[in-house]
Amino acid sequence: MELLDRIKASGDVKDINKEDMEALCGQIRTLLVDVVTMNGGHLASNLGVVELTVALHRCLDLEKDHIVFDVGHQSYVHKILTGRKDCLRTMGNANGLNCFPDECESRYDSFNTGHASTSISAALGIEKALRIKGSDGKVVAIIGDGALAGGMVYEALNNAKDLDSDILIILNDNEMSISRNVGAMSRYLSKLRLRPSYIDTNLKIKHFVEKLPGGGKGFIRFIQKTKRALKSFVGQKMFFEDLDIRYLGPVDGHDEQFLELMINKAKNVKGPKLLHVITTKGKGYEMAEKDPVKFHGIKNSSQKRKRLPANPMYNELFGRLLTDMAAKDENIVCVCPAMTEGSGLSEFSITHKERYFDVGICEQHAVTFSAGLAKNGIKPVCVIYSSFLQRSYDQLLHDIGLTNKNVVLCVDRAGITDAYGKTHQGIYDIAYLSTIPNMRILAPESKEDMKKLLYRALYDIEGCVAIRYPYDEIHDDIKKLFIDVSDKNGISVYEKGSDKAILCYGRMVPIAVDAADIAIADVVKLTDIYPLEYESLHAVLKKYKYVLCVEDIIYNGSIGQRLQSWLYGNGKNEFKLVCLNINEDCEMKGCVEDILEENMMSSQRLSKIILDEKT
Amino acid sequence: MELLDRIKASGDVKDINKEDMEALCGQIRTLLVDVVTMNGGHLASNLGVVELTVALHRCLDLEKDHIVFDVGHQSYVHKILTGRKDCLRTMGNANGLNCFPDECESRYDSFNTGHASTSISAALGIEKALRIKGSDGKVVAIIGDGALAGGMVYEALNNAKDLDSDILIILNDNEMSISRNVGAMSRYLSKLRLRPSYIDTNLKIKHFVEKLPGGGKGFIRFIQKTKRALKSFVGQKMFFEDLDIRYLGPVDGHDEQFLELMINKAKNVKGPKLLHVITTKGKGYEMAEKDPVKFHGIKNSSQKRKRLPANPMYNELFGRLLTDMAAKDENIVCVCPAMTEGSGLSEFSITHKERYFDVGICEQHAVTFSAGLAKNGIKPVCVIYSSFLQRSYDQLLHDIGLTNKNVVLCVDRAGITDAYGKTHQGIYDIAYLSTIPNMRILAPESKEDMKKLLYRALYDIEGCVAIRYPYDEIHDDIKKLFIDVSDKNGISVYEKGSDKAILCYGRMVPIAVDAADIAIADVVKLTDIYPLEYESLHAVLKKYKYVLCVEDIIYNGSIGQRLQSWLYGNGKNEFKLVCLNINEDCEMKGCVEDILEENMMSSQRLSKIILDEKT
Repeated sequence: MELLDRIKASGDVKDINKEDMEALCGQIRTLLVDVVTMNGGHLASNLGVVELTVALHRCLDLEKDHIVFDVGHQSYVHKILTGRKDCLRTMGNANGLNCFPDECESRYDSFNTGHASTSISAALGIEKALRIKGSDGKVVAIIGDGALAGGMVYEALNNAKDLDSDILIILNDNEMSISRNVGAMSRYLSKLRLRPSYIDTNLKIKHFVEKLPGGGKGFIRFIQKTKRALKSFVGQKMFFEDLDIRYLGPVDGHDEQFLELMINKAKNVKGPKLLHVITTKGKGYEMAEKDPVKFHGIKNSSQKRKRLPANPMYNELFGRLLTDMAAKDENIVCVCPAMTEGSGLSEFSITHKERYFDVGICEQHAVTFSAGLAKNGIKPVCVIYSSFLQRSYDQLLHDIGLTNKNVVLCVDRAGITDAYGKTHQGIYDIAYLSTIPNMRILAPESKEDMKKLLYRALYDIEGCVAIRYPYDEIHDDIKKLFIDVSDKNGISVYEKGSDKAILCYGRMVPIAVDAADIAIADVVKLTDIYPLEYESLHAVLKKYKYVLCVEDIIYNGSIGQRLQSWLYGNGKNEFKLVCLNINEDCEMKGCVEDILEENMMSSQRLSKIILDEKT
Repeated sequence: MELLDRIKASGDVKDINKEDMEALCGQIRTLLVDVVTMNGGHLASNLGVVELTVALHRCLDLEKDHIVFDVGHQSYVHKILTGRKDCLRTMGNANGLNCFPDECESRYDSFNTGHASTSISAALGIEKALRIKGSDGKVVAIIGDGALAGGMVYEALNNAKDLDSDILIILNDNEMSISRNVGAMSRYLSKLRLRPSYIDTNLKIKHFVEKLPGGGKGFIRFIQKTKRALKSFVGQKMFFEDLDIRYLGPVDGHDEQFLELMINKAKNVKGPKLLHVITTKGKGYEMAEKDPVKFHGIKNSSQKRKRLPANPMYNELFGRLLTDMAAKDENIVCVCPAMTEGSGLSEFSITHKERYFDVGICEQHAVTFSAGLAKNGIKPVCVIYSSFLQRSYDQLLHDIGLTNKNVVLCVDRAGITDAYGKTHQGIYDIAYLSTIPNMRILAPESKEDMKKLLYRALYDIEGCVAIRYPYDEIHDDIKKLFIDVSDKNGISVYEKGSDKAILCYGRMVPIAVDAADIAIADVVKLTDIYPLEYESLHAVLKKYKYVLCVEDIIYNGSIGQRLQSWLYGNGKNEFKLVCLNINEDCEMKGCVEDILEENMMSSQRLSKIILDEKT
């Protein structure tokens, strides 16, 4: 790793000889594979952008130029090249590097990302701020073809020319988002890739430029002035050009030297432009190239060990149940934005192909499309990760809530999630879903719960309902400990005969049971978490002196907060109610267990809180 | 109005002779002008779609076909043609017709709209549900060129072909949204309009079709089979075609008979297609044609009278202050999605043209673009109506909140708004904004407040802050009644020496003062409404026996609810705290005063609540 060792700070990559680039890229790949297969993280996407990132770092001056990575899981190489190589092994650990760009971590991380399709808007803002401040810094946004489906991208493209922008958008086209891509844009890009002129034109231009005096200095003028040549270069008028974005490419994303040439030229073209770069996800690591879906995000060795094969994950069980129910009910359809495998829907997508709609990374469209489906007796189940569902807030309110449409939302990755930092935490969904008119929120804890709640959501509840569950194993081990105290309202109690109780739902239930066994306390479990049946719940809780409400979400909008306000507003004060929630200032890195521990939500911590309480 | 009188129910328009269409359209226009100039409502947009709506109703069978109106303020003609002509005069009144499509009002209103850019997603869902149920009903989405800027549209277009859709999208191109349109798409449409072939091709096709045996029966085959003819018809490959949407047009939107011909043909073309229709906003009413911005939404006569010219509206004062501040500080920039006039920003947009960014109807992009601007010392002020800001929830959280960017959000139309129904109420912003990490929320009540809070937001507060205000007059009349009790925290009191108090902010303050004068109660006014300084507020409130917290927002996430939970959680119980909020089940039609009255929020109602309280 002799070449890589010479890269200690941003800009060092420029000091390495052109001839050594291929070897350097090889060394970067070796490092990526070593680190990610041990630590977990995003492998395939980073292997795909090695040459592209190296070329960008050699063409830009990051002391004044900016790179904005869309989604940001493909920024590992950028981290390696900006002085963070030696910390790469800490990525995803509680005190380690962030898996995504992080403005607090490095001044070379220009904008925090995590959710798709934000990069062009952010880059336009950064560039405009630079211009107002008199800087001529260049701004580059790198976006994958998957994220190109998000509506925000189009909003930004539509606005770029009006802003007199000179932004360079690099379309990192690997024909994948996390799953295989869908949609017309994806087909359109395929056509561009397959243009017979692609390789030929590239070679011709390369040849042409190299022959120019000074190695290509006349090339800018060539681009700007030679209309006819330009035409053969950029192809006919097309989608991007219709939006006043100059289209350049496509070019081979694994030819580092040619990429440098193209980036250097493109960055000096006036106006907004898009350079279409073709990359292979997983490049250089055979297993990842062959199965990029599997190698998109991989777990670290310790995480892998924790999984017991006997129990399915929440989403696997959900997917299996829904597939079975759909076999018996032709009105059940399923909508999912680009997360088929991650949401446990592979089987559904094959078995009920004609009723499965992967709409691409388009959470807004997914929700309103579901609202349309809900007319005429169809039962749409719309499956979205908790933090990504934020993108649909207005659609949830405007298109589903106000008219109380019969849409079942399945909110996966609810609560704390593994290793991905603040952008991916499912800690806001209860807060924002409970501001949606008519919304109900259910939280299963056991296999039996999941089955019951899914049935109720599809057949018993009139109007919109959300079922939220974490990315955890689901089981039935502790179900039998609980006695239903309110058949209709989903309240059940694990009785230890104490005057203290833990109030919880979903993931926190088994943790609370362990804590209750240690500290001798009751556990009150809910499945119907919003709206709360306050009277019934109060009837159960009033016999206690102390109730600890534990939720791995933010305090604002939490069940505990609402219960406190109801108790105050109704003049009830039989018991002390303490709320334990996620502290938003915590880093939220590391595995779920680490983050829960940091927030006092392990069994040990909970039991200590209860034992320390002298009510 | 003899022709119009014959239209009593959906479908009746088909019984009127072809030759009478022009006269019928004239009668519809007369009715529209009469009603809207008296009652208030949307005039220009409805005048623009008279022929288009008539043509659609003659071509479709609304017993099985569906029309989805984007935004929906252009659905008055549709209401006239579906049996609601005689109620049109009640539109916008408390018990009258909704100004927007309303599924509860008529089964011919297929989908509730109000916010921009949702129609194609909804239409795709409705169509897919029809197909699953075995219906061959057609689905048409009508969308204006302004709403075409919203990212959701692109998400839906991108997905249409994958869904095997046969949807007909009608692009109602009047070169306007509410303000003049911006963006590359808008320029692109201009180019399409200006194609020399436009009128010619139309005439040629018209001529060609009329000459066909049977008046055009062979036309479908002509479209489907004659590739060469098709090419001259649809023009070259372009934006929509790249997204697998067949483009048809442009056609004259005021030639009713030709529209019928085109719609009849287009609706039978397989696959998703877009018919580009050119209309004139305000058509047939000279004043509205000349000034469509002014005649977009007009107030009714009684609303007009209420306005005293002495005081500016909140947003006018805001715009004036910001313009002055920007003259002294070159780092201040302003971002607004397509609401320049409505937001009081006309002067800013002219005086500081180079620092004013109207990004089109793109709330998502507006927020993330602002986040990008906030880098490097620029101070972006992003101005969005409360209910439209919902569209940016994820961007607020992900791009501004998590990194606590220095963005000032100005949230106009906060609280109850006039006449537009549920989709336009600003009653959710405090709830959703208070779930955004690091967000602060301020609410001015007087001119002095507005000045102070704007200054603080721009210069004193580190990180993101929202200033929310209603669409009301702002004044300084009652400012002098209040004594500041907590200089830093914006708490002031109007003392009447009572043991009862009304807790409020913003618009509710003058109403509360009137009520307090009647019922002899104190008024506690806040400007810093989130996060609440609980200790300081408690110190002020604990001397009362009864506190009525009045907010024209939903209870969930309200200041009162939070205060209740804090009091309970901290074992405080000196006073009774009652929260008065907007009942989400109320219709929210009629003027602000009506809606407040219905929610017990008039001075009279408040004073009665206080007098009835026997604490």
